[in-house]
Amino acid sequence: MDILFSNVTCVTMDAELHVYPNAFVGVTDGKISHVGKSAPEEKPAKIIDGTGMVLMPGLINCHTHLPMTILRGYADGHDLQTWLNEYIFPREAKLDGRAVKAATLLAIAECLRFGTTSVSDMYNFCDEIAQAVSESGIKANLSRGTLLFADEFDVEEYPACVEMMELHRKWHGHDDGRIKAEVSIHGEYTSDYRLWDALSEYAISNGLGMHIHLSETKAEHEESLERNGLTPAQVLNCHHVFDTRAIAAHCVWLDEEDRQLLAAHHVTAVHNPISNLKLGSGCADVMAMVKAGMNVALGTDGDSSNNNLDMFEEMKAASLSANGLYQKPGVLPPAAVLTMATVCGAKAQGREGECGQIRVGMDADLILLDFTQPHLIPCHDVLSNLVYSAHGSDVVMTMVRGKILYMNGQFTTIDLNAVVRELTEYAIPHVFSDDE
Amino acid sequence: MDILFSNVTCVTMDAELHVYPNAFVGVTDGKISHVGKSAPEEKPAKIIDGTGMVLMPGLINCHTHLPMTILRGYADGHDLQTWLNEYIFPREAKLDGRAVKAATLLAIAECLRFGTTSVSDMYNFCDEIAQAVSESGIKANLSRGTLLFADEFDVEEYPACVEMMELHRKWHGHDDGRIKAEVSIHGEYTSDYRLWDALSEYAISNGLGMHIHLSETKAEHEESLERNGLTPAQVLNCHHVFDTRAIAAHCVWLDEEDRQLLAAHHVTAVHNPISNLKLGSGCADVMAMVKAGMNVALGTDGDSSNNNLDMFEEMKAASLSANGLYQKPGVLPPAAVLTMATVCGAKAQGREGECGQIRVGMDADLILLDFTQPHLIPCHDVLSNLVYSAHGSDVVMTMVRGKILYMNGQFTTIDLNAVVRELTEYAIPHVFSDDE
Repeated sequence: MDILFSNVTCVTMDAELHVYPNAFVGVTDGKISHVGKSAPEEKPAKIIDGTGMVLMPGLINCHTHLPMTILRGYADGHDLQTWLNEYIFPREAKLDGRAVKAATLLAIAECLRFGTTSVSDMYNFCDEIAQAVSESGIKANLSRGTLLFADEFDVEEYPACVEMMELHRKWHGHDDGRIKAEVSIHGEYTSDYRLWDALSEYAISNGLGMHIHLSETKAEHEESLERNGLTPAQVLNCHHVFDTRAIAAHCVWLDEEDRQLLAAHHVTAVHNPISNLKLGSGCADVMAMVKAGMNVALGTDGDSSNNNLDMFEEMKAASLSANGLYQKPGVLPPAAVLTMATVCGAKAQGREGECGQIRVGMDADLILLDFTQPHLIPCHDVLSNLVYSAHGSDVVMTMVRGKILYMNGQFTTIDLNAVVRELTEYAIPHVFSDDE
Repeated sequence: MDILFSNVTCVTMDAELHVYPNAFVGVTDGKISHVGKSAPEEKPAKIIDGTGMVLMPGLINCHTHLPMTILRGYADGHDLQTWLNEYIFPREAKLDGRAVKAATLLAIAECLRFGTTSVSDMYNFCDEIAQAVSESGIKANLSRGTLLFADEFDVEEYPACVEMMELHRKWHGHDDGRIKAEVSIHGEYTSDYRLWDALSEYAISNGLGMHIHLSETKAEHEESLERNGLTPAQVLNCHHVFDTRAIAAHCVWLDEEDRQLLAAHHVTAVHNPISNLKLGSGCADVMAMVKAGMNVALGTDGDSSNNNLDMFEEMKAASLSANGLYQKPGVLPPAAVLTMATVCGAKAQGREGECGQIRVGMDADLILLDFTQPHLIPCHDVLSNLVYSAHGSDVVMTMVRGKILYMNGQFTTIDLNAVVRELTEYAIPHVFSDDE
């Protein structure tokens, strides 16, 4: 046994939502090897005293754009289309692989510091993103967000598709599945059937997941109805986009027919309440999606529309906004949002059975929170304190596959000072060069 | 000069919202004595290097119930009336002064740790609350929340009013105005005109502030219309409740006439978005209140309906929920919510000119945030990073009147271990005794 967490409050996230006080959780060869009320007989190489701490599965952020961290707080306050077209796209046009890698490493440091152990990302310069993921030790499902406005289109030659296929060939399954490649159609409104057909076919024939934006804004939803006579979900479905393991980010403007359709295709909706509220896109009706039988996971969206990657904030926002939408307390209680951020996220990533719970045999993707701070006392209800009282900053240790990646202010795989230097000296001046 | 903050990013919260990089801020005898781009000639006794840090005025939490911290996370998920009647009131009935003092000290530790330097509180056992405030060094406007359901009422003998008058006599103006006593009518729905007349008269004749709950829930608002033919604001106004320096917490269900009435009486609305969303009470229309000319401040409400006292979370929630309500980004931008949490809060407390800004001559109620952490990089916009990216946990120093009360994990006036011991060994077992 490599590591034993002793005397820790263990939140298992199993189906019965067991919370064990004074538990012992052992880690051997990257897997959880012991969960019990007493220490195992086998001597561990290292003991981490969990007194006053809570141990839970690492959080899974199912929709983000890691490199957008370089744009954190840039041009807040605009509606989605203005913000994208007038501010974000011109900056993104100046990104290069070197800047993306630095921004991704910074974003991963933020994820690890706040207890996220796996992310689903959609962006470009995927080779550099994958390098950063590989080096850092975090888990990731990576996809090349693909738009299509060109008249000519040949999947074999279209640069974004070429990059997607390279991502697939080079990185899919890397480090025993720590990295997975997925296919990404950015959205219905940023491409057409040629891309949908080509990428659905590619995903299906290669057994890859699919990551899309869906009905994020009212305009997007209604323009599809005008253009196609169908909602975005309906028209994409006609082109087999959902005959894959698909995750659909946002889903703010779905109608009931959409929800039934997506549930029937086992599509995961990724709820991003903070981004949707901040950009004024609306608030997804999570309860209706759950009722329709959809798997619902949580995401932060990119750092530039949030403006952090703290999944604890996202859980609180998900619960508060659901209560707000229904003007009823307890609509989405702590247990439900914790499940979304762990178990449902693992399912969305095709990592069911691999992570998202504390169970013997699963990967040791674990986080430890310090519950001795003033804002976490008293603790009448651990799940309530996790969702409503805690911050990501309360995480004192983040482990992926048994390897400690963050502990007490220190990153073990990321040289944060070097990353910040690279951002300050190269990436930021490069991307914002025409302002100066 | 006692302390000099050097090379710090200074967010002044003055009317022009100046943000000075590499500033020097000096503190002498509890007051801000220097704000400039270079160091003063006078040698300071102590220098705090502000490199990578942001210095701003301490936050002002204008509506809370500090001792309710002992109920954090207890019985989440019920609507306000059920939650109060079936869970909270029975526990509160078991509180005593000793338990209240311990819970208040814990709550103040949480406030200081998260950068709050002044609070407006409404509760009972006010003498013990005032003792805790006095010892801790925080600023507070304290009031005895008063309900009236009894048939007989004589203000001179009614216990809650007697306690209020004792609070006034003993603590009003304590430590050169660090503590102020206020008068509190808990709410329209928990008392009647006898209390309103008596307490308004007391507040007016003694020049005291007034702290009430107003139109928090739809039921409260509508039942007043049925009972009185008037909204809560209208009926209380008939009894001179607003002929005082009044703060009205919640204001979720005000109509436009109410807003005009309250604005004409210079009433401050205290917006508590997290509590209102969590309890399913609704979301106050802050923009309409601002437009009507009301002063709007922010509050966390009690720890049991939030469930923390982090004003940074409250600022983010205020901005997000306003954008959500209007389905428009930028409705309540960072500058506006920061102003609510500082300048407008000071005004609400009758502390205008005393605190809420960084200006020479004002009290040195200051907080320092560490902006070198991954989630605060890059910093394209300091105000955006403060509201959308930061947590209360990013505060590394909290100072009231030039005295450091919290720094780098240490409280200088509160023995946190002793407080937690008192809670664990005495207060919690006492209040929850019939469960065990």
